[in-house]
Amino acid sequence: MAAKLVYWFEEGGEEHRQILGGKGAGLAEMTRIELPVPPGFTVTTEACKVYYQSGNKLPDSLKSDIEAFIKGLEGKTGKNFGGTRNPLLVSVRSGAPVSMPGMMDTILNLGLNDQSVKGLCEATQDLRFSYDCYRRFIQMFGNVVLGIPHNEFERVLSQLKKDEGGGQDYEVSAQGLKSLVESYKGIIRDKAGIEFPHDPYEQLFMAVSAVFESWNNERAIIYRKINKIPDDLGTAVNIQTMVFGNMGPDSGTGVMFTRDPSTGERVLYGEYLINAQGEDVVAGLRTPRPISEVDEDLPGMFEQLAKVARLLEDHYKDMQDIEFTIERGKLHILQTRTGKRTAQAALEIARAMVHEGRISKETAVMRISPEEVARLLHRAVDPKVTVEALAQGLPASPGAATGKVVFHTGTAEALGEKGEKIILVRPETAPDDMPGIVHAQGILTSRGGMTCHAAIVARGMGKPAVVGCDALRIDLEGNKAVINGTELEEGDVISIDGGTGRVYLGEIPLVEPIMGESFREVLGWADELRKLGVKANADTPEDARKAREFGAEGIGLCRTEHMFMGHDRMSAVQEMILADTEEARKKALDVLLPMQEEDFYGILKAMRGYPVTIRLLDPPLHEFLPNIEELLRTLSDMRAKGAPASEISRVEELLRKARGLQEMNPMLGMRGCRLGIVYPEIYEMQARAIFQATARLIKEGIADVFPEVMIPLVGEARELEILRERVTDVAVQVQTEQQVEFPVVVGTMIEIPRACVTADEIAEHAQFFSFGTNDLTQTTFGYSRDDAEAKFLHKYLGEKVLKDNPFAVLDTKGVGKLVETAVRLGRATRPDLVIGICGEHGGEPASIEFFHQAGLDYVSCSPYRVPVARLAAAQAALRNK
Amino acid sequence: MAAKLVYWFEEGGEEHRQILGGKGAGLAEMTRIELPVPPGFTVTTEACKVYYQSGNKLPDSLKSDIEAFIKGLEGKTGKNFGGTRNPLLVSVRSGAPVSMPGMMDTILNLGLNDQSVKGLCEATQDLRFSYDCYRRFIQMFGNVVLGIPHNEFERVLSQLKKDEGGGQDYEVSAQGLKSLVESYKGIIRDKAGIEFPHDPYEQLFMAVSAVFESWNNERAIIYRKINKIPDDLGTAVNIQTMVFGNMGPDSGTGVMFTRDPSTGERVLYGEYLINAQGEDVVAGLRTPRPISEVDEDLPGMFEQLAKVARLLEDHYKDMQDIEFTIERGKLHILQTRTGKRTAQAALEIARAMVHEGRISKETAVMRISPEEVARLLHRAVDPKVTVEALAQGLPASPGAATGKVVFHTGTAEALGEKGEKIILVRPETAPDDMPGIVHAQGILTSRGGMTCHAAIVARGMGKPAVVGCDALRIDLEGNKAVINGTELEEGDVISIDGGTGRVYLGEIPLVEPIMGESFREVLGWADELRKLGVKANADTPEDARKAREFGAEGIGLCRTEHMFMGHDRMSAVQEMILADTEEARKKALDVLLPMQEEDFYGILKAMRGYPVTIRLLDPPLHEFLPNIEELLRTLSDMRAKGAPASEISRVEELLRKARGLQEMNPMLGMRGCRLGIVYPEIYEMQARAIFQATARLIKEGIADVFPEVMIPLVGEARELEILRERVTDVAVQVQTEQQVEFPVVVGTMIEIPRACVTADEIAEHAQFFSFGTNDLTQTTFGYSRDDAEAKFLHKYLGEKVLKDNPFAVLDTKGVGKLVETAVRLGRATRPDLVIGICGEHGGEPASIEFFHQAGLDYVSCSPYRVPVARLAAAQAALRNK
Repeated sequence: MAAKLVYWFEEGGEEHRQILGGKGAGLAEMTRIELPVPPGFTVTTEACKVYYQSGNKLPDSLKSDIEAFIKGLEGKTGKNFGGTRNPLLVSVRSGAPVSMPGMMDTILNLGLNDQSVKGLCEATQDLRFSYDCYRRFIQMFGNVVLGIPHNEFERVLSQLKKDEGGGQDYEVSAQGLKSLVESYKGIIRDKAGIEFPHDPYEQLFMAVSAVFESWNNERAIIYRKINKIPDDLGTAVNIQTMVFGNMGPDSGTGVMFTRDPSTGERVLYGEYLINAQGEDVVAGLRTPRPISEVDEDLPGMFEQLAKVARLLEDHYKDMQDIEFTIERGKLHILQTRTGKRTAQAALEIARAMVHEGRISKETAVMRISPEEVARLLHRAVDPKVTVEALAQGLPASPGAATGKVVFHTGTAEALGEKGEKIILVRPETAPDDMPGIVHAQGILTSRGGMTCHAAIVARGMGKPAVVGCDALRIDLEGNKAVINGTELEEGDVISIDGGTGRVYLGEIPLVEPIMGESFREVLGWADELRKLGVKANADTPEDARKAREFGAEGIGLCRTEHMFMGHDRMSAVQEMILADTEEARKKALDVLLPMQEEDFYGILKAMRGYPVTIRLLDPPLHEFLPNIEELLRTLSDMRAKGAPASEISRVEELLRKARGLQEMNPMLGMRGCRLGIVYPEIYEMQARAIFQATARLIKEGIADVFPEVMIPLVGEARELEILRERVTDVAVQVQTEQQVEFPVVVGTMIEIPRACVTADEIAEHAQFFSFGTNDLTQTTFGYSRDDAEAKFLHKYLGEKVLKDNPFAVLDTKGVGKLVETAVRLGRATRPDLVIGICGEHGGEPASIEFFHQAGLDYVSCSPYRVPVARLAAAQAALRNK
Repeated sequence: MAAKLVYWFEEGGEEHRQILGGKGAGLAEMTRIELPVPPGFTVTTEACKVYYQSGNKLPDSLKSDIEAFIKGLEGKTGKNFGGTRNPLLVSVRSGAPVSMPGMMDTILNLGLNDQSVKGLCEATQDLRFSYDCYRRFIQMFGNVVLGIPHNEFERVLSQLKKDEGGGQDYEVSAQGLKSLVESYKGIIRDKAGIEFPHDPYEQLFMAVSAVFESWNNERAIIYRKINKIPDDLGTAVNIQTMVFGNMGPDSGTGVMFTRDPSTGERVLYGEYLINAQGEDVVAGLRTPRPISEVDEDLPGMFEQLAKVARLLEDHYKDMQDIEFTIERGKLHILQTRTGKRTAQAALEIARAMVHEGRISKETAVMRISPEEVARLLHRAVDPKVTVEALAQGLPASPGAATGKVVFHTGTAEALGEKGEKIILVRPETAPDDMPGIVHAQGILTSRGGMTCHAAIVARGMGKPAVVGCDALRIDLEGNKAVINGTELEEGDVISIDGGTGRVYLGEIPLVEPIMGESFREVLGWADELRKLGVKANADTPEDARKAREFGAEGIGLCRTEHMFMGHDRMSAVQEMILADTEEARKKALDVLLPMQEEDFYGILKAMRGYPVTIRLLDPPLHEFLPNIEELLRTLSDMRAKGAPASEISRVEELLRKARGLQEMNPMLGMRGCRLGIVYPEIYEMQARAIFQATARLIKEGIADVFPEVMIPLVGEARELEILRERVTDVAVQVQTEQQVEFPVVVGTMIEIPRACVTADEIAEHAQFFSFGTNDLTQTTFGYSRDDAEAKFLHKYLGEKVLKDNPFAVLDTKGVGKLVETAVRLGRATRPDLVIGICGEHGGEPASIEFFHQAGLDYVSCSPYRVPVARLAAAQAALRNK
């Protein structure tokens, strides 16, 4: 026996969403709880599949089924389909299991023809209304089913209005509408090459087929691709008795939300129009009135609506978005669905519903999207603003900023120190742009992807950034830029929105972030539910404080290289690099030691009570020197100007060294623990600075500081063994010198495939592992992040060679397998091994779920991602219970 | 009960080598087969351990044991230890389980003192001889046991000789020697602060202790480290009755080999001296005579020696190196061991012994060192040459060459084409030096390691190369170089030996390689025994022919990038890179197509009967453009000279493109299959060239050609899926166009960690895997080969952070684990998956053993390594039976 392909609304419910679609399930559910839903039935998604399997045809058996249901509907309503007396009109609406704009939506008034329109006149005693319904139906049918553009019909309507002496649609005469019906039938004949079908069943079958076809139109296919919706779900079709909001002053139509979708406040929120159909609301010719005033038009209606809202919220236990029509004083409910809301409202509603006893804390936590939380933390361009953007780049770091355009880091620093608000505009940024970035309100680059230097640094600092803005052409020498034809000079004001990637000329109104009580309370519930710890990546005391404020339970990655970048340190750092002997190197390091000690002192103090994982120097040394082309330029300038020989020789020396440090593939070169092995004195200085800061704090009575030393880029156990011994030796020296005791914790980054497969050996020397998933992704894929994004990754993502950008979402299939291997091997050696992750992925929800499943102890991410991670970790725990 | 720590020679044998040491085991074995071995006993390696466990002391129990054995020796010989009548003298020699220069070797004549020397006089009736023995013993004892430098004793001897009127040691009078004994005892007193011990047991215990101590002297420790010998083996001590070769004209001493160690010829080979002790031979004061003439001095002795040689060879089934002494006409055998031999002799002996029925083919194959075979294939500097080398670099590619110094590739090409023999001398080489390398006899670079570009290319071409020659300072602009103070100008003649790394001024006599019948036959046996197939990496028909000659069973890696480098192609290649549209790119590719077809035609033809695995284009495109600094220089030259605008703009275009192609980490950038995905037309052209060449050959009647298309750098199954489809499409097109059928085989390199862990998915689209272990090592370790070797790898190897250079010897712990994972996953999907390896490791014996264990089907290496791989594969099969 064939499966049942058509269901009465009375037969279904929310549990049949897969075959009834979202709209059908909602109608069924509302019918079940006896809300006033006009009777009807749903042709299932299974029928859609049958349609495609039958060569894009409705099989006869399906047609018979539909016919039988229409007969049933005639029985229920006492009306006649296509009849001249009391005709049955229906609406036909698509409804997939997942909400899908881009598909055919609605045909109203189906069942009208030259006969039944007369029946409608008779039943309503309203000629104008009846022919208005009829001409609207022909246009909708012509457009949706036959693909004739709307303007073909509008043109004739306009002409008619002109002929009648001008005015609005609703001022057209009944006779005019009657003639319009004839003209519209002519358009159908001309454009579609068929006669307008008068048989109501033919109309219905054509409409159902059109809904099924629209499942595979181009817009729908693209939408599914983008939103990762399977292509084989299919759509259902809902066929429902028409009710009319345009039957006079006791009729109307509207939408309502059970709570305020902007603030989450528990008030009935919505709009209505008297004597109107849904289309009229959309057309915007009349201004709808707020639902709070409905009793002025229809006394007692507010209470009816409020009752429906209460019922539906109680039933669905979530805020609902409801469509209704009032026909001659009687309320009909046409649709209900979960209401869209702002991030702020989402939090507020979730919190309120827990307090109202409607939902559990778990449900509340699951209802918030982590990315919504991220947006809450940043300023944004006021959504009411309608100024057109100059250009759009990648939304690299959320938040909006306004400031003067500056093209050079030096200028940015100078102006920034004077308190000027500036936007640093560069082709791309490099570590030596740090001072400029620090002083800028925001960053705009013409190159780079979501994980380029500017993006990572900006996210880390919670600073707005738009990167990879192709339209931007920068002339660094000329101190100007062109962006889609608009010339920008240094000092011109622009605004950027790193949440949307938009760039605006001039100052734009911004809205401030709100972190209210609901934010704190819901995230508190998340904290109770999650298993993963959440720490922050932070390099300064300010970052550390920010991280605490956002709920970080320690610092999972404190990079020390940024500490080498400051103006006051650069010359000592360069001395150290230029040193040709260990002794000269040590002398330069002695200058850096007190500065580094100060850095660690500040961070440890700001994070007291929590562990602070400090990574020893990681980047290749040439990053601390000016680049070669720049040095060559400087040198030729100096020579031309006849600079003193001693200055020239210093630059020559820098150039010689920079050339010596040059590498084919710096990413795979002399960096990380390799530096530590080859130049022991650098790591020894850093270890000493850490432990001296610790000793000082303990002596000052701040005993609850927990520094942990992290060795980067270990690929072989012996590397860690050697360096751990050296660090421990320094710790013992400091303890002896300062007469202070403190525990010494040494661990390693796991960011090289070899470290993963030899993690059992490495764990013998490590008290903790922290996955550096950025580098691990680079080496596992053999992708240089910068090169890949610029050269081929966009193509790979565009053509779906890869599903996601592995630098944004952890590649569980490849990188994830190595992570799992490392966890298994590491814990086999040391069951109490603490394992975390401190790459960019630590703040990305899908990746966080993977880390939860892999059994990690914590994730660490930039301070602004901490709330996101707290929520995502709780959701991961709930989903994987 | 304590273990037995001392053994009579009669008690042991070869099976006790671990406790008796090599020398002791040999003496025991010879005693067992009743050769004339002077009686004696061995203090075991266990005793050595007991010595160290007892705080570097001989325990009393051990002393008692030794005393008891000496008593036994007195009984066997009828002599008295330290006695005044017929005194027993012994030699004391160390002997570890593994031959170990650097340890104490020998003390002769132990047991002499002021009393027993008189007994010796009486027994030998030779005053001079007796005191000569005595003074020699004191000097040896003083030196070896007490650590007094030889020259302390030599000085007194010289003075004595002067006092006696000059002359040789053996001309010193008996009275002189008597006085020398007194002086020597004085030296002992002065320098060691003790009286020379007269108690023979005290002498013996001190000597045994000294041997045990020498196990841990610095030289021995270093030797063990270098040769990876465990530190806890310990050494044995052999104590043997003295016999004297210096007792007159019927006495003598010598060494013999059972076969000629240079050629392997089956003749008794050796030297002897009449009336001499071993030391005299070493001192080189008298010239030894060839053993073939021994009957002239001692009639009938040759037959006695030949009999011993036969017996020992029959017994050990290998060529022996034997020490003997003849005392008053009686032959004594003092030592036997496996004889060292040249590579040529090793093959000859192994082959002969199989034919003689002495050993099996398996044993013969196991006896040859694969590296010996490698050396046989190349010319070398004549070992008789005594010219001092100018400098030493790394022996990057074996073989020797002589030619004129040339610093620039252009010049090299020009001179080379004229037939001049040249040596290309560069700081390092890059792909654009290929034309110069092709035309050079050999390559010398000042930078780079064993796996730098020059080294890899040279090994591939079987061309001598010395790289990383630190002493070489090149002034490219000045067209000259300085090497350890010697200035070299272009055109000066030098010689290099890539087998030793030595660089010589001028022309040096070379010896030609010999690949005789024994080479072919023994390698034939290896072929029968091995499980692994052996293919070659070859890019040209000439290489292919060479590879066949060396026994390759196909080409495992045919790189196509070198085909893009030729003079005739460079401009088309650059056109292709400069093309901004697909159409322009296709036009340029159309020019390349017939050239590539010709390449493949030649290679497939040369390799008919065997598969040829062709890798599609792999390197980043910028490798085919001049580098940026060079372009900038050219541009400024052109502008200065007022070159035509069109020429200038072409260079500017090149510069712009080169800048656009520039990458931070080209190794991890836009290369391999990423090129193939982004620019489909490049791979399509190559596929077309391959299949057109195939079709042409088949039409010409050469049906047994087997091209296989290999996609490089796959990290995600989808990449291979896409590219395989494109290649297959082209094949089908060509088959249709040409009306020819041929099988289409497509596989992939596995050279990215992600490919290893997702090998199950990749295998769905691959007919074969070929591990690219060079890149896999780079990504697994996160090492850029060039950068690592230059910047930190030397340090890592020097300080034993890593045991081996992972680019030379496969890292089984890390890279090997990924290889095993890929094999397991790949075969799980496709049990008949063919798996090979085509990295540098394919020709390295230890790595080959790993590949055998991992279950690979074949290894592929440069043609000159093919014989090495055949042998190593057989040995791996035998060792892992």
